[in-house]
Amino acid sequence: MNLIIVNRKVFLLGVMALLLLGSGIYVSPTSAEKGKSVFYKFDKSGNLLQPKGYREWVFVGSPLTPNDMNNGKAAFPEFHHVYIPHEQFKVYKNTGAFPDGTILVKELLSVGKKQAPSGKGYFNGDFIGLEATVKDTKRYKNEPGNWAYFSFTTPIGQPHNKTAKAMPKTKCNFCHQAFAKDDWVFTQYYPVLKDAKPGRK
Amino acid sequence: MNLIIVNRKVFLLGVMALLLLGSGIYVSPTSAEKGKSVFYKFDKSGNLLQPKGYREWVFVGSPLTPNDMNNGKAAFPEFHHVYIPHEQFKVYKNTGAFPDGTILVKELLSVGKKQAPSGKGYFNGDFIGLEATVKDTKRYKNEPGNWAYFSFTTPIGQPHNKTAKAMPKTKCNFCHQAFAKDDWVFTQYYPVLKDAKPGRK
Repeated sequence: MNLIIVNRKVFLLGVMALLLLGSGIYVSPTSAEKGKSVFYKFDKSGNLLQPKGYREWVFVGSPLTPNDMNNGKAAFPEFHHVYIPHEQFKVYKNTGAFPDGTILVKELLSVGKKQAPSGKGYFNGDFIGLEATVKDTKRYKNEPGNWAYFSFTTPIGQPHNKTAKAMPKTKCNFCHQAFAKDDWVFTQYYPVLKDAKPGRK
Repeated sequence: MNLIIVNRKVFLLGVMALLLLGSGIYVSPTSAEKGKSVFYKFDKSGNLLQPKGYREWVFVGSPLTPNDMNNGKAAFPEFHHVYIPHEQFKVYKNTGAFPDGTILVKELLSVGKKQAPSGKGYFNGDFIGLEATVKDTKRYKNEPGNWAYFSFTTPIGQPHNKTAKAMPKTKCNFCHQAFAKDDWVFTQYYPVLKDAKPGRK
């Protein structure tokens, strides 16, 4: 039998750690709590890497501006599925503010069927686009609100780009600044965020 | 200094537990992995309790059958936001099947605005309904596919019911059995599930 002599405090710490793991109640500190986001990364040229795993984040709303309601020329064809990481959703729910390091992902889906057993309407088709916005007070200190906007979208049928350059202010930020309800985010169209904001209930 | 003599293996286990906690990579075993769903519960009369926390589950799709496309009488007014717990989504992604104990939640939202700076369309309004379906081979052994359907919806403005009784077969199951693509679930309208199913890529 190999025996080891340890300090009593170290021993008790080890026992507590084992108990915590066994109980399954341990929750790792979130990056938001650590004050550092790990939900987005950049390459050496400062381009945003395509976010991953966002379909398992918190979905906040699904605006729809289909081509057939916009003379065949919708600016954002067509369904928009918008997501925020769980940790940042939690911060928003507690504070009503988007923390530094927030990322929101907007996935674009074509309109699929327009008729189903449930009635006439609009039904999600294929994934056709991917966009993101990042709030980063250091990296985007010169962008209004410190938000930058990115598109990974390619022509239909091709895989999305793996990286994206921040869009010029006039392309996205301008409209968000003018019309978005809460800190450059269109929360007025995202009921899950609207409902989560403190003071709403 | 208090010293304690411990077995070498116990000591190493304690050190590993401390390291795991420190790294924040420990994830507690999921209920799905334990083979027991904790995502739905029943009261003593066998009524399903209103599910909680589903807006932080995996969103799978957002069909829309608005009143104004259905002569003012949509069967399901109007946006449907459909969710599945992360653990069960993981099982579906790995196996292509909904495990026993699956719950899907469908939240109904009114149509809010129909015009925004992004164009004409349909924008999420208020939460107006809550429905769920449960696959339970024991409890619903006599239901087709072992799926039962529930509605917590109340007239607009009132809080949803806290419990719901399983609907008669003819009310929901019938249509799901006839038209849903995968195991009584309308995956043809849920792109996130459609894309996750093994063999799709």
